[in-house]
Amino acid sequence: MIHELRVIFGDTDQMGVVYYANYLRFFEGARAAFWRDLGRTHKDLDAWNVALPVVTAHCDYRAPARYEDLLAIEVDVVELRAASMRFAYKVRCEGRLLAEGYTRHAVIHSGDGRVRALPQELRDALEARPPTSLREP
Amino acid sequence: MIHELRVIFGDTDQMGVVYYANYLRFFEGARAAFWRDLGRTHKDLDAWNVALPVVTAHCDYRAPARYEDLLAIEVDVVELRAASMRFAYKVRCEGRLLAEGYTRHAVIHSGDGRVRALPQELRDALEARPPTSLREP
Amino acid sequence: MIHELRVIFGDTDQMGVVYYANYLRFFEGARAAFWRDLGRTHKDLDAWNVALPVVTAHCDYRAPARYEDLLAIEVDVVELRAASMRFAYKVRCEGRLLAEGYTRHAVIHSGDGRVRALPQELRDALEARPPTSLREP
Amino acid sequence: MIHELRVIFGDTDQMGVVYYANYLRFFEGARAAFWRDLGRTHKDLDAWNVALPVVTAHCDYRAPARYEDLLAIEVDVVELRAASMRFAYKVRCEGRLLAEGYTRHAVIHSGDGRVRALPQELRDALEARPPTSLREP
Repeated sequence: MIHELRVIFGDTDQMGVVYYANYLRFFEGARAAFWRDLGRTHKDLDAWNVALPVVTAHCDYRAPARYEDLLAIEVDVVELRAASMRFAYKVRCEGRLLAEGYTRHAVIHSGDGRVRALPQELRDALEARPPTSLREP
Repeated sequence: MIHELRVIFGDTDQMGVVYYANYLRFFEGARAAFWRDLGRTHKDLDAWNVALPVVTAHCDYRAPARYEDLLAIEVDVVELRAASMRFAYKVRCEGRLLAEGYTRHAVIHSGDGRVRALPQELRDALEARPPTSLREP
Repeated sequence: MIHELRVIFGDTDQMGVVYYANYLRFFEGARAAFWRDLGRTHKDLDAWNVALPVVTAHCDYRAPARYEDLLAIEVDVVELRAASMRFAYKVRCEGRLLAEGYTRHAVIHSGDGRVRALPQELRDALEARPPTSLREP
Repeated sequence: MIHELRVIFGDTDQMGVVYYANYLRFFEGARAAFWRDLGRTHKDLDAWNVALPVVTAHCDYRAPARYEDLLAIEVDVVELRAASMRFAYKVRCEGRLLAEGYTRHAVIHSGDGRVRALPQELRDALEARPPTSLREP
């Protein structure tokens, strides 16, 4: 899916562009929107005793985002393993690619912190979902 | 006007609520939306050689905002002086007041940094604008 | 006491100065240093079942802080009431005042969230502490 | 070199640990300390018309950092190419590795934004510098 977000002044740094750490905030906002779009919220994950801590974050910066830019953040699940999953992101402004990256997440039990499998219902929902590039015109 | 914003994980702190400094980010996002709604952007202010640095920020916290809350931030200009102006903000979630505050801004020349008057056209536009409480149903 | 802090790139915005919300982060860093200096940590407050949520934050901006500035943040408790307290802050760089402000905190029970009194031992320690202006040469 | 940093409340999120994007802020603080340690500041880079925008950022999260943790961030230049360079980072608390990552930077002319070579004097200074693991006891 595609999550939109407006760059604020507080996102920029003195180079006049969005500070590099803030893209990880944008990724996270897109991730939350992804779960909402799937009809699952953070509360559902809690109810399943699932937590998905980030174990790796990566971002390649192609071109700067600027104040007032309306960013379109494409987010997809691109890998589902036994006890981990990966989201990929593309940040665009007016169709131009500004950044792309991914986050890898462990799947753990939110109570005891141990590695666990994704609930089957959630895995099914994720696997049934076509990638954004096939869904959006 | 009312600016909407979704709380992300990165806005929260270990108390499980939005970290207090982030309300000033929310205020700023609402301020930018205010200018856009007025048909003026940051670029227009630049073209007029106007900058509006914050000289005072104030926030009273009434109740916590939480992850995934959809916040409605009401923003109005409540004071226009010779060389300063004040914005007021109310942050609500589902009608409940969570925080309110204000920012006071100097009006300076964006080139030389000296205090200056607001351009008359901008002053007229601001004065002609009814407060949000009278405009939104 | 005086808490020192180096401005990073991520603290600045596209005006080339520290973004206004970040001063509340600086205040909080100074507050934590204040508790450590008093020999109390956050964990002690937890052990006493005390939490001190911010109910008001205020900052007056006098002059901009910039990238690489080494800031000296003076912090004192300036008001102790039955169930609230106030910290005051002055942010300086090379002796020059850049900003000043305060935070007011409710004193609540960290378990049930109800208003409570400060533990007497903590109140005594705070009252016995001379203000920074009398303590630092 | 090793750059120390205290985790503040505002760095944490509602999981009770440091929010993942903030490690990129920590990396940047360590990078600035690296330049200062080398006797070069951002102003020197400016004087040489050199800017080093981040083109890739990567972080692997091993264990959570928490409020009040005193972090030791080891930073080294691990790659010097014709027109790019790479910093590597290890974040530890009390000797325990919490995170590690890298940032890759283009070397560009700060005026016209074109790719350029590092000034020879700077390249020499960087090449003469032993890695932190050989320098710190």
